[in-house]
Amino acid sequence: MSTGATPIGVGMLGCGVVGAGVVKLLQDKSALYAHRTGRRIELAKVGVRDPHKDRGVALDAALLTTDLHAVTTDPDVDIVVELMGGTEPAVELMLEAIRHGKHVVTANKEAIAKFGREIFTAANEMGVDVYFEASVGGGIPVIQPFKRSLIANEVTELAGIINGTTNYILTAMTEQARDLADVLDEAQRLGYAEADPTADVDGHDAKYKLAILASLIFGCRIDVDQIHCEGIRGVTATDIAYAKQFGYVIKLLAKAAQHERGIEARVHPCLVPVGHPMAAVNGVYNALFLKGDAVGDVMLYGRGAGQMPTASAVVSDILNIASDITAAKSSRLMACQHNHTGTLLPMSETISQFYLRLSTHDRPGVLGFVGSGLGQHGISIETFVQSRVTGGLAEMVFITRPAREADIQHALTQLKASDSVHDVSSVLRVGP
Amino acid sequence: MSTGATPIGVGMLGCGVVGAGVVKLLQDKSALYAHRTGRRIELAKVGVRDPHKDRGVALDAALLTTDLHAVTTDPDVDIVVELMGGTEPAVELMLEAIRHGKHVVTANKEAIAKFGREIFTAANEMGVDVYFEASVGGGIPVIQPFKRSLIANEVTELAGIINGTTNYILTAMTEQARDLADVLDEAQRLGYAEADPTADVDGHDAKYKLAILASLIFGCRIDVDQIHCEGIRGVTATDIAYAKQFGYVIKLLAKAAQHERGIEARVHPCLVPVGHPMAAVNGVYNALFLKGDAVGDVMLYGRGAGQMPTASAVVSDILNIASDITAAKSSRLMACQHNHTGTLLPMSETISQFYLRLSTHDRPGVLGFVGSGLGQHGISIETFVQSRVTGGLAEMVFITRPAREADIQHALTQLKASDSVHDVSSVLRVGP
Repeated sequence: MSTGATPIGVGMLGCGVVGAGVVKLLQDKSALYAHRTGRRIELAKVGVRDPHKDRGVALDAALLTTDLHAVTTDPDVDIVVELMGGTEPAVELMLEAIRHGKHVVTANKEAIAKFGREIFTAANEMGVDVYFEASVGGGIPVIQPFKRSLIANEVTELAGIINGTTNYILTAMTEQARDLADVLDEAQRLGYAEADPTADVDGHDAKYKLAILASLIFGCRIDVDQIHCEGIRGVTATDIAYAKQFGYVIKLLAKAAQHERGIEARVHPCLVPVGHPMAAVNGVYNALFLKGDAVGDVMLYGRGAGQMPTASAVVSDILNIASDITAAKSSRLMACQHNHTGTLLPMSETISQFYLRLSTHDRPGVLGFVGSGLGQHGISIETFVQSRVTGGLAEMVFITRPAREADIQHALTQLKASDSVHDVSSVLRVGP
Repeated sequence: MSTGATPIGVGMLGCGVVGAGVVKLLQDKSALYAHRTGRRIELAKVGVRDPHKDRGVALDAALLTTDLHAVTTDPDVDIVVELMGGTEPAVELMLEAIRHGKHVVTANKEAIAKFGREIFTAANEMGVDVYFEASVGGGIPVIQPFKRSLIANEVTELAGIINGTTNYILTAMTEQARDLADVLDEAQRLGYAEADPTADVDGHDAKYKLAILASLIFGCRIDVDQIHCEGIRGVTATDIAYAKQFGYVIKLLAKAAQHERGIEARVHPCLVPVGHPMAAVNGVYNALFLKGDAVGDVMLYGRGAGQMPTASAVVSDILNIASDITAAKSSRLMACQHNHTGTLLPMSETISQFYLRLSTHDRPGVLGFVGSGLGQHGISIETFVQSRVTGGLAEMVFITRPAREADIQHALTQLKASDSVHDVSSVLRVGP
């Protein structure tokens, strides 16, 4: 196959850290990519805020523009690569590119999670591709495995460690017995956490990614605001130590499962048994663990963020589209095939095992009182330890058998109101 | 998109355990698959040796034939699924199908590893697809991730646990401190090992899979007979116990790496550090661990064999081709793009850390003698223990620093010939 045909023009919206990685790959490996796709891939236009910023790559000044619409409408651009992040003006620019018949590659999890309906509907109408491999799990193959390699399956459940910042923090807290504030501070200095860490630490980034994954595997739109979302601010060094004693590590998990009455989708810290493959996913690594009804358990593991891993996913998407452009149509398997919104199961109806840490008054009968209080709500205990009596207070730590979220919440409300329980120190779920 | 168009006809060659799984999926999920691909997928013909055998699935007798050529030439068949295994007559039948313009899906690692040149050349000439996701790693997404999701990378090295039988055996030996013969016997009773276990236990199955992977990532044909291949017959409960003491587990690894002077490709037992993600891959699970120059480390994990995991890969391939048939041509990225044979590095030139277990005569100066013997060949020691003196013999166990294979072999030959060393009990490599 000749590579003498018209080159494939790539237009970029934004050129920060990941963008510079994309430019570097397209420049350094242009001969390899021409061989692999059968087409030359050429950077046609790069829309940026500041054309004079040093990006660490040699970019022809003639390619740079501050007019982002010049990228989405350029006749030499076949594929628009959106790397601005956020929803405005990224979403409007992607829609404009699609209306002009451009294929789109994006790493923007928030835009896809919140405006998937608008973006995919427009793309299907125009018969163009929207690829978003980089939006979940950085460079880990995730989207194509779901859309292609596992397409014979119905994926019934999914648990992911899909936020690198929080996994870095939890790993450091676990390995070095340090507090969240201390590790977060270090992560910010090292560039693993943003100056405003809210999106990561409070679980929103993981929530956007979970919405994208749940939408893919269950074939419906997901209302991202309905996803139960807890971050890691409540996780303490004490909980991590108890978890270890019980044979668990604490991870921020994003979970999804299909039930008859709706889709379970939730993000929260979770105790993971040390023998489970997810327990060994440390530092900035991410992993997706899924069950397919034919394939069984599958895990996809790798770097969930960073310049070159993310650029790897973005450029692979570009090459996939470039290779298929010769076929002059978008790929059905890679297109979005749904447009109805799935019913999400209320968090109160989900079932988990729970890790409960209670501060109780140290007097006879308290264990019986607490045990009965849980039992009245149908909650059984799997493991129990009591320790560290200080100032007339004893610490009781339970791991329960699987229980309804609502039952746990009711039982804890009742226990908190009693004069035997001083405080509920921690409530974490056990999984995955 | 309508599914009213002409259905896609599937013809099967062989219908054993995996074939029955494929039939089951195509029957049970026909509506889902029609939605996902936009085409109805219909079983058009099934070629078998014995049409009267009970396969555990309801197969219309009119579809069955003992004439395998009737499958490869049937005008109603668009995709031929080859599940016979072995090379003859499977390869000839696949070539016949290709010559008749059929796309091919196969789970046959031996046929692809040995006859890839003939099969892919014919497919490229005819413009048809040959998909072989099931040939490596059962249902784990492997081939499409390499050909699509990671295509922006040059994969520089690879280590895989890609044989379920040997991993089951080594896991049982490790967890239950049992001997190979004992566990192999059990594995045969449970159906995890064949009556003749040679292909698995001696590493040939892993070697075929490694040839396919190395060919994909390095873009050249691989002469499968040149791959260094050791099975697990030399691994003893004693070695597993020592490995544990040093912080390792023993796995059968398939490894490949690109060097300036050639491609390193080898299959042998290996000590894997307990903290490495590959160390947690147990039982019949498989995993591929790879390094891409942009993406960094990636691991793909799941069931490497079994009826439904393998059927998952086969049927996903069918659906991928069915979805793309509307584009009326094969996909460049999924096609084989090379036809030259790569240069394999001789095993003697590869570098590994080594685990050495020597039985020595228990007298003064022997440790010095052995240490000097290794040192003369440029081999340094990382860890050493000596133990269990019986009958005038002492056992010395070393883990070396990285050393050339040839240097280790020369040093051991020299030590064996000396009157200080009674025997070289074990030589294993440390990795991955």
